[in-house]
Amino acid sequence: MKKILLLSLLAPILAFSQHEEQIKEIYNEALTKGRAYEDLRVLCKEIGSRLSGSPEAAAAVEYTKQLMESYGFDTVYLQPVMVPHWVRGKKEIVRAINSDKHGIIDFNALALGNSVGTGPEGVLSEVIEVSGIDEVNELGKKVEGKIVFYNGEMDPTIINTFGAYGGAVVQRSSGASEAAKYGAKAIIIRSVTNRQDDIPHTGSLRYKALINQIPAVAISTNDANKLSQILKEQKLNVYIETHCQQLPDVLSYNVIGELRGSEFPDEIVAVGGHLDSWDVGEGAHDDGSGCIQAIEALRLFKALGIQPKRTLRAVMWMNEENGLRGGTEYARVAKQKGEKHIAALESDSGGFQPLGFSTSGSEEQRAQIRAWRDYFLPYRLWDFDQNGGGADIGPLRSHGTLLIGLRPSTQKYFIYHHTPADVFEAVDRRELELGAASMSAMMYLLDREGLK
Amino acid sequence: MKKILLLSLLAPILAFSQHEEQIKEIYNEALTKGRAYEDLRVLCKEIGSRLSGSPEAAAAVEYTKQLMESYGFDTVYLQPVMVPHWVRGKKEIVRAINSDKHGIIDFNALALGNSVGTGPEGVLSEVIEVSGIDEVNELGKKVEGKIVFYNGEMDPTIINTFGAYGGAVVQRSSGASEAAKYGAKAIIIRSVTNRQDDIPHTGSLRYKALINQIPAVAISTNDANKLSQILKEQKLNVYIETHCQQLPDVLSYNVIGELRGSEFPDEIVAVGGHLDSWDVGEGAHDDGSGCIQAIEALRLFKALGIQPKRTLRAVMWMNEENGLRGGTEYARVAKQKGEKHIAALESDSGGFQPLGFSTSGSEEQRAQIRAWRDYFLPYRLWDFDQNGGGADIGPLRSHGTLLIGLRPSTQKYFIYHHTPADVFEAVDRRELELGAASMSAMMYLLDREGLK
Repeated sequence: MKKILLLSLLAPILAFSQHEEQIKEIYNEALTKGRAYEDLRVLCKEIGSRLSGSPEAAAAVEYTKQLMESYGFDTVYLQPVMVPHWVRGKKEIVRAINSDKHGIIDFNALALGNSVGTGPEGVLSEVIEVSGIDEVNELGKKVEGKIVFYNGEMDPTIINTFGAYGGAVVQRSSGASEAAKYGAKAIIIRSVTNRQDDIPHTGSLRYKALINQIPAVAISTNDANKLSQILKEQKLNVYIETHCQQLPDVLSYNVIGELRGSEFPDEIVAVGGHLDSWDVGEGAHDDGSGCIQAIEALRLFKALGIQPKRTLRAVMWMNEENGLRGGTEYARVAKQKGEKHIAALESDSGGFQPLGFSTSGSEEQRAQIRAWRDYFLPYRLWDFDQNGGGADIGPLRSHGTLLIGLRPSTQKYFIYHHTPADVFEAVDRRELELGAASMSAMMYLLDREGLK
Repeated sequence: MKKILLLSLLAPILAFSQHEEQIKEIYNEALTKGRAYEDLRVLCKEIGSRLSGSPEAAAAVEYTKQLMESYGFDTVYLQPVMVPHWVRGKKEIVRAINSDKHGIIDFNALALGNSVGTGPEGVLSEVIEVSGIDEVNELGKKVEGKIVFYNGEMDPTIINTFGAYGGAVVQRSSGASEAAKYGAKAIIIRSVTNRQDDIPHTGSLRYKALINQIPAVAISTNDANKLSQILKEQKLNVYIETHCQQLPDVLSYNVIGELRGSEFPDEIVAVGGHLDSWDVGEGAHDDGSGCIQAIEALRLFKALGIQPKRTLRAVMWMNEENGLRGGTEYARVAKQKGEKHIAALESDSGGFQPLGFSTSGSEEQRAQIRAWRDYFLPYRLWDFDQNGGGADIGPLRSHGTLLIGLRPSTQKYFIYHHTPADVFEAVDRRELELGAASMSAMMYLLDREGLK
């Protein structure tokens, strides 16, 4: 009896040291024989940007499916989902036509995703600057017939840049309908970034029902400063021409690869990112990194011969950027099939150095993850306190699934976000590998310990 | 009496909240009206690389002096110090002359700092590969007349890359004399980096007394892999030609700027980096960032109207890279003058996102700094446990001074270290600013609380 008691007292310590050792092997493998960097290179350089409904998105579906098959995952399959098919069309024109000092100015611009186009006739009108939606509501009918220029900035004093993003992005997502309510003809927004440069940032908007849908473009922060300066000096007319269109929905897929659990195959731990990206750049940080890290997280189990007890699933969700159709459909099908997801992990904050995991779940569930912090401190992940999961896994929360988000450094994310600059070269090899290993290690703990 | 007791109980809480508020202002100022980024641009782009003894090093002395004067520091002065004057001379040649498969190969190479040149006649000999100094000692006289190729790698599984660097750098610093002991004619080393690429990394070597001084070069990691592969297949002769020389010592300076303390002017808190850099690249991360952060740390006091109680001193040390003369002289003079440095801070690990502070001092001193961690957690600095200060402040330790090192993320440092790639564009604005604000906030706490 004493011996049994002693063993039961020792068990957690032995388990800790066994887990510690296995996790070290996971990181070592990722950092010495990792495949994530090369796999991301192919996704970025041979396929490139992959907006939902595009041929490149279809190519990315096929590529990641074949990749998971080549790694010998037990099951790899496609989950059909209808997605929006928005196309940018011909290059945007956003042109100041009567500036006294500078003559004609062509601003660096990108139409916002989902926005209607002006068509070849364009929109020409006087510009009125506002700091945000509140000011539009104050101005009311004074914006009628005008182009509203939202010049709200990301607050640089918020250390977590996603917090600053959250404060500024509303002008992008809702600004068009809010201005259209009062008869505005179009909107221009200051790109949602904390960087001062010449690169415009796209991203999606949502039109409100029953309100006139007006064209919307983003200009670079340098151009926003210039436009604002001119407006202090004179009345300015701007010409906007965009050729974007919302085409009929297209059949696309979530891509799913599984390692089947040996003891509790019905308990699923999912890990993933979103496979679609904006149509500029290469979707390297957003979110090629997350997809490739998810595949690598499972590949590391295979490479190290770790037989999972539970079913581990890597998922490349489609259409996070302008619809969330993939994440929504995935949760719907899971419910329909009666699948039990004990936890879902997402990496969708870029391939930067991982600093921790955020969680969304019951207090008990969240405490269990926080208690695993000591396993990750040697790898410099320390922040396990933040609330949150990820957009694509969000719909699983109502099933009682614990959501876990990888939290890398946020300082540089909004340099690249939704821009032509989000390319493979912007991702650091070691940082990407550390993220993949961290996801894999978290899955390993969930697999071995389950959720209490 | 009760009121006094209550006040004395509340005092630490009130102090905490007052400090918290002041620190928030420091970060806000750095992130919204910071000057570090523009100042670093000038140092990198208008002056550039600045090896000790070079005209550019003299320009950097003048620039940082004028900069601190322009910010209105109470005293700005130069501290004379004689420094080595090593020059690279004409571009290096490291050429495989009889490779069967590739014919003549020119490797991407840089002579190691302080190394003697081959002169125009060059060195031509067979190459013998070793993994490190141990193997040279095993081979002994077998290396006589040969070129020894040290191909030791940085261990990618060590998460703190400075640890991996420490393990690999000995072949650079001591490899030449260790091979010369047995009659080797020259050495080639694999560049000390964890990145696979075509960029050679320079850095200093030390010749041992009474041993023949032989030429030493570094080649890129891709080239080291190629060379190693060829050596598995055939005997290979390599021709090395370098034109570096150690010229007579030159008069240079540490650059010092002060804010005088109002209550305890004789207690000094120093903060700095080293002003010299290697003669390739722009010394942006190593260590332009540290110098500019130190100046910014003091400027933030001025900008916010914080009157220091103690004397705060920004120091740009000269000649860290190939002699440490500046740091040594600074400590000597401090001792001679009877100056009391309560603490010295250094930033010399790149302008990356700050993650904490390391310390070197008594257990009591170190505990005091660790106890301040809560002030920094909102800014994502969490690691206060590491041991260590910095090279330039090292000589102050024997005075009883507490040494404090800023610890930024280490993942990307050795991509740039001692290479042509260490340029301004490799430094991120927010990360640089966060580091400057962190240094300033640490100085603020030292200024207000002193050292117990």
